[in-house]
Amino acid sequence: MQDIQYEPAHPPLQHRFAEVRDLSEALVAPLSDADASVQSMPDASPAKWHLAHTSWFFETFVLRDHVPGYTLHDPRFPFLFNSYYEAEGKRHARARRGMVTRPTLAEVLAYRRAVTEAVLANWTRLPPHALELVELGCHHEQQHQELLLTDVLHLFSENPIEPALWPAPRKQPVAVPPPIGWIEHGGGIVEVGHDGEGFAFDCEGPRHRALLHPHAIADRTITNGEWAAFIADGGYREPRHWLSDGWAWVQREGITAPLYWAEGEGGGWTRFGLDGRRPVDPAAPVTHVSFYEADAFASWAGARLPTEQEWEAAAAGERADGGNQLDAAGPVEPRPAVAAPAFFGDVWEWTGSAYRPYPGFRAAEGAVGEYNGKFMSGQFVLRGGSCATPRGHLRASYRNFFYPHQRWQFTGVRLAKDL
Amino acid sequence: MQDIQYEPAHPPLQHRFAEVRDLSEALVAPLSDADASVQSMPDASPAKWHLAHTSWFFETFVLRDHVPGYTLHDPRFPFLFNSYYEAEGKRHARARRGMVTRPTLAEVLAYRRAVTEAVLANWTRLPPHALELVELGCHHEQQHQELLLTDVLHLFSENPIEPALWPAPRKQPVAVPPPIGWIEHGGGIVEVGHDGEGFAFDCEGPRHRALLHPHAIADRTITNGEWAAFIADGGYREPRHWLSDGWAWVQREGITAPLYWAEGEGGGWTRFGLDGRRPVDPAAPVTHVSFYEADAFASWAGARLPTEQEWEAAAAGERADGGNQLDAAGPVEPRPAVAAPAFFGDVWEWTGSAYRPYPGFRAAEGAVGEYNGKFMSGQFVLRGGSCATPRGHLRASYRNFFYPHQRWQFTGVRLAKDL
Amino acid sequence: MQDIQYEPAHPPLQHRFAEVRDLSEALVAPLSDADASVQSMPDASPAKWHLAHTSWFFETFVLRDHVPGYTLHDPRFPFLFNSYYEAEGKRHARARRGMVTRPTLAEVLAYRRAVTEAVLANWTRLPPHALELVELGCHHEQQHQELLLTDVLHLFSENPIEPALWPAPRKQPVAVPPPIGWIEHGGGIVEVGHDGEGFAFDCEGPRHRALLHPHAIADRTITNGEWAAFIADGGYREPRHWLSDGWAWVQREGITAPLYWAEGEGGGWTRFGLDGRRPVDPAAPVTHVSFYEADAFASWAGARLPTEQEWEAAAAGERADGGNQLDAAGPVEPRPAVAAPAFFGDVWEWTGSAYRPYPGFRAAEGAVGEYNGKFMSGQFVLRGGSCATPRGHLRASYRNFFYPHQRWQFTGVRLAKDL
Amino acid sequence: MQDIQYEPAHPPLQHRFAEVRDLSEALVAPLSDADASVQSMPDASPAKWHLAHTSWFFETFVLRDHVPGYTLHDPRFPFLFNSYYEAEGKRHARARRGMVTRPTLAEVLAYRRAVTEAVLANWTRLPPHALELVELGCHHEQQHQELLLTDVLHLFSENPIEPALWPAPRKQPVAVPPPIGWIEHGGGIVEVGHDGEGFAFDCEGPRHRALLHPHAIADRTITNGEWAAFIADGGYREPRHWLSDGWAWVQREGITAPLYWAEGEGGGWTRFGLDGRRPVDPAAPVTHVSFYEADAFASWAGARLPTEQEWEAAAAGERADGGNQLDAAGPVEPRPAVAAPAFFGDVWEWTGSAYRPYPGFRAAEGAVGEYNGKFMSGQFVLRGGSCATPRGHLRASYRNFFYPHQRWQFTGVRLAKDL
Repeated sequence: MQDIQYEPAHPPLQHRFAEVRDLSEALVAPLSDADASVQSMPDASPAKWHLAHTSWFFETFVLRDHVPGYTLHDPRFPFLFNSYYEAEGKRHARARRGMVTRPTLAEVLAYRRAVTEAVLANWTRLPPHALELVELGCHHEQQHQELLLTDVLHLFSENPIEPALWPAPRKQPVAVPPPIGWIEHGGGIVEVGHDGEGFAFDCEGPRHRALLHPHAIADRTITNGEWAAFIADGGYREPRHWLSDGWAWVQREGITAPLYWAEGEGGGWTRFGLDGRRPVDPAAPVTHVSFYEADAFASWAGARLPTEQEWEAAAAGERADGGNQLDAAGPVEPRPAVAAPAFFGDVWEWTGSAYRPYPGFRAAEGAVGEYNGKFMSGQFVLRGGSCATPRGHLRASYRNFFYPHQRWQFTGVRLAKDL
Repeated sequence: MQDIQYEPAHPPLQHRFAEVRDLSEALVAPLSDADASVQSMPDASPAKWHLAHTSWFFETFVLRDHVPGYTLHDPRFPFLFNSYYEAEGKRHARARRGMVTRPTLAEVLAYRRAVTEAVLANWTRLPPHALELVELGCHHEQQHQELLLTDVLHLFSENPIEPALWPAPRKQPVAVPPPIGWIEHGGGIVEVGHDGEGFAFDCEGPRHRALLHPHAIADRTITNGEWAAFIADGGYREPRHWLSDGWAWVQREGITAPLYWAEGEGGGWTRFGLDGRRPVDPAAPVTHVSFYEADAFASWAGARLPTEQEWEAAAAGERADGGNQLDAAGPVEPRPAVAAPAFFGDVWEWTGSAYRPYPGFRAAEGAVGEYNGKFMSGQFVLRGGSCATPRGHLRASYRNFFYPHQRWQFTGVRLAKDL
Repeated sequence: MQDIQYEPAHPPLQHRFAEVRDLSEALVAPLSDADASVQSMPDASPAKWHLAHTSWFFETFVLRDHVPGYTLHDPRFPFLFNSYYEAEGKRHARARRGMVTRPTLAEVLAYRRAVTEAVLANWTRLPPHALELVELGCHHEQQHQELLLTDVLHLFSENPIEPALWPAPRKQPVAVPPPIGWIEHGGGIVEVGHDGEGFAFDCEGPRHRALLHPHAIADRTITNGEWAAFIADGGYREPRHWLSDGWAWVQREGITAPLYWAEGEGGGWTRFGLDGRRPVDPAAPVTHVSFYEADAFASWAGARLPTEQEWEAAAAGERADGGNQLDAAGPVEPRPAVAAPAFFGDVWEWTGSAYRPYPGFRAAEGAVGEYNGKFMSGQFVLRGGSCATPRGHLRASYRNFFYPHQRWQFTGVRLAKDL
Repeated sequence: MQDIQYEPAHPPLQHRFAEVRDLSEALVAPLSDADASVQSMPDASPAKWHLAHTSWFFETFVLRDHVPGYTLHDPRFPFLFNSYYEAEGKRHARARRGMVTRPTLAEVLAYRRAVTEAVLANWTRLPPHALELVELGCHHEQQHQELLLTDVLHLFSENPIEPALWPAPRKQPVAVPPPIGWIEHGGGIVEVGHDGEGFAFDCEGPRHRALLHPHAIADRTITNGEWAAFIADGGYREPRHWLSDGWAWVQREGITAPLYWAEGEGGGWTRFGLDGRRPVDPAAPVTHVSFYEADAFASWAGARLPTEQEWEAAAAGERADGGNQLDAAGPVEPRPAVAAPAFFGDVWEWTGSAYRPYPGFRAAEGAVGEYNGKFMSGQFVLRGGSCATPRGHLRASYRNFFYPHQRWQFTGVRLAKDL
């Protein structure tokens, strides 16, 4: 939730709203009704659900709450499309979202259009707080755009015929990047967290002082080639590198490589992506690794993961809207680094920081206060966004978070070390 | 699998083949691509899978094995659409059938047409054994038609908005049937099992002598009204009526009524069916009860379930193609009895007989030998067919079988007692 | 429960009661307090629980119900030591029996003595029905003696140091028995079930006519050597031999040999028994196999399991108290056959018959009516008793029953075939 | 693991070693062999295992590694009694520790004596590093003494008759403590972590600077009376107070009160402790609450949990060996506070800090390096020790850690708030 003092600039917001709504629909254009309806695991949601839930958010918090006389598009939808807002009443069980074959994809797209049009039709009558909620809703929808892509990728990976969402021409191999360079920091007090200019989620603030210790942070992320060396060196078979929970996970799940990797028939690794199954590109950033794997790799490499404060201090000078991020519907995947440093885009970078409240954090009031704070246990912070993050969505203070075993997002690794 | 000596009459079989293939497609006409693709539980399969699997059966055992030079419609399909034939190689995990959003419903329907046309185009060249397999395939597909309907019903029941596959006008109430009449049998040796005339599955034979003990069998099945009395009398709360496994199931799953029943807001029971949610009709046969429930009801009523031999002896004189069975796509549900006795149609009747081989049983050779014999542990025999069984599919010797906790089929209860 | 008309002979019963009570205590003499208290799996119970539960049975159904003024030894014990009698009220969860470290073994032995003495002290005042319950209690306790031994065996097998309950000298190898001989039966009506003379459990009756079909039954059980040949021929890797549920069990549990078998370091199979780990004796009957394994072996051997009626007809002429059964505390294990036929002792023999009620069966009234009838789903009948069955406990009509995956009892295989 | 530069004072260490070894044995004096052998849940271990494992630690890292010619007491014990040291080879599965009824308690006590005597007999020949390992072993054993008590408490709580380890006279009620006083801190840089004087575990260092933000910390922990008010106010039924994972845990496990609390028959709460079941003392610190509960309580109270740095800064001036800690075998339970502040003893206090490495942390080399570092994911830090912590074991820098749902330790709550 944004800070209270924030006053959104109206015309750009309206434009942004329309753009965000359009992008979601462009992303699902290649999906069949079934593609959009099936849920491949409890962590994932059907694409149709993402489309509807993001609309429910606008319908509930903007239209229902701020447009007098607004009538719900369908009174059955709040039960179906609320995600986890306890304050908004009962809702459909998360793990059963894939049972909702009706409404169809076409009906959900109609719901979307109705909500979009109602917001636009009432735009000039919306009070400032409602516009703040529109902005929040845009950022919320951008988060779901990324989830939608990673959830479709997971679904397609479960289909033995491995469909490609966006078939793409084979890439030319790129030279493997040079060795990691280390960006040193002598330690001392820095400021981190959102400074109140523009939108931010509540968990990014308040801005506060943090004490860094002398350290160095890598100028690029780990590549697939480096990960293959970790595998070849027995990285997944040597408990010494692993956190205890991580080792239990490796054993229980039979983990031997990043998610979607498989050994090709003629040797060599392949990976499944939104463009189908392809050879692993050794020059590209490794992705679809869990925190446990990231931590084990760092241990094997004689390094560690950066803290989120170290990361933020290093990334502060860089443009958050640069790098390989999502601009439009079409193939997305991490790309080989061309110039360092690049802290934004390609892959979310696991930090060594547990996702916990900042000093002085208070959740927003009301249902939207459930947005972030209640998830602050058991998860780790990721920074920097990915190739599937809509460009314009990120900030240096942006805190993403997942459980340490999860890896169906575009997650990767940047190393750090003590000085 | 049919008996060796059987010689199918060619022209009627061709006609039958075409009819069966058509009916499957008619049944799915109201389904969306998503409706046809989602799997609601491991016991159920997507409608699309049923459509494809029944085609795979013809393609594999008829076209591939008996049509020289036949090329598979899609080489990826055998892996996707083999059900459980170990002899036919590896296959997709049953519980993950719902992940196969591609091929789409349209593509599967195209596969169906291609297979149907290839069978018909090669008809006159098919050797007699292949025609036997065509007949087996027709019976196989009829079984899947019934499963398709019950699987769709289960899927729709999991959707909070409870769609109706075939909306239907509200029925007029019918007078509750008179008390059960008892058909007495003095005991002695009878012949049961298939006599070799016409098609039968291998598990129905060989025909053999069986010794009955003096008993009586009810002239109709239990009604919803009688079941409601069982509930009202605390039937689901009194362990004394229940088998030990059944009581554990009731406790673990929180069972308090037949599947799809719910208490209406204004009191009274409702049930969900292929026509949506409706009030329970007290005059209609109860359905969607497990063997455990059937056995507990019988115990509560001071009776027992019939053995399959008692059932078959009683039903032997009746036409197997009579009663309320599936004639065409459209609403199906058990209907109030109008005249007794009626042993066929409406609901599958749980017997007290474990599904085990008959004396002298031998499974058919080859992959189709996996059709029945390997399921002969842990399941109970049901007799008589249901409102969702395609008319023409049944025989007095027909043995259906399910696990004692399963109840998503149209399963009901007929009582018997010792004399 | 015994038949109503039965009148127990008083002095022999008193003697029998004392002997049974003594044997239980002799069996646990080598056990430590911990050995007697730990529960190794939900199917098994601690030895201490068996000792106390069998005493609770006498205390409840004889002393409490038939001795005016009797005061419970400890009012907390009924909750702890009721097994599954719903009519006797709430009880401790079966899977948590191993939590009851107090009362100690010594306290439970004191409870036993107090109950034994109270029964004997009140003997002459017990009404006939109470004496019937004493006899039932003796048979009940004998059943628990066998369970106690197999439960201790399972517990010790879970201890990495594999203690021996009764260390025993190494046996001399015995000549492998000659090939199976087949006892033929031409079919026809036979009488099976208990005839009302002497004690029997309710499930053994009523005696009734059964129709046998022409068949042959083996004159001995399968040996370890024959089982090793099944393993060597890939028996556990070939789905064709297995029931579908059995194959799923093999895959899920990673089953490759009978329970307690392991491959020795120098090659060859070893097995764990009450005398510790020893080489498998190829001449001895195979034991600790499940119904699924028994059925798969029979399929591999081109035979089938006998029905329980076939078994009973074949065994009817033999003394039920012969063969290798439990006479006293001390090493028990199946022994090589020396003379055929021998239908009693060594190993319980899986039949192909599901455990279901006989024609005309009615459970006994009251709590003891829960003894058998409520278990009549999902289990298979075993016949003939084992090396761990107390001698004097068996009858030709005796029906034991277990689930098809269970194999911690001394269970083995006798083949049959159709003629 | 202690710091390298540490040089233990020899005579006091020898004395300390003997005292620690004695206390373990005194704690188990009231236990039966079964009490000492049963494992009540995978998180807990049998008392016998604790006794043996702590001996294995000395035998392995001191005797085997530093006493030439030492022969293992029993070569089977390392497999049985290694806990989680991957570098020390295979070991018995944690969840099956309760299967080890042999060796008996008496045999394990003999093992203890043999190890203790061997260490003492070789004392003067032990190199300095071995003495460091002795000291580590003493601290290690003290940790297991606390676990032993809480594991026995859990085991006894699972027994329906709820035995008391140490029956104790009923306490006189004590006046409820005054309202919480708040100790304010203006923020700024403090030093935390172990300073290298005396023993510390590796995770307590290195000592480093930390930046505190202005805050206040409570001068006492939350009482049972305050917790009862939280319950009465619907604290366990209101999702708003709870972390998302915590709410899921409450729902899944049916949590309605601290562990071991029950509603008394005449109203009012009781709790089970090492002295049996007793009324809850409203003046005593609440204990056996999870992190989730602690966090929810703080949220309900409009406060938060302290960070571990805030806690350490506040506690730094207090003696770590004061308060209600374990001095000898005998009843232990949290006691009403008499004077504030008291940061040590009574209950471990959940902090809001995830258990993660300090800046510059490096795990010790070798197997003992697995002591702490590998557990640094998913757990939260607790500070201050409890009534069951052996006195002399604690330091201000001491970091204990458990998963957020665990609550069988003596865990409680101290509040903090932002200024």
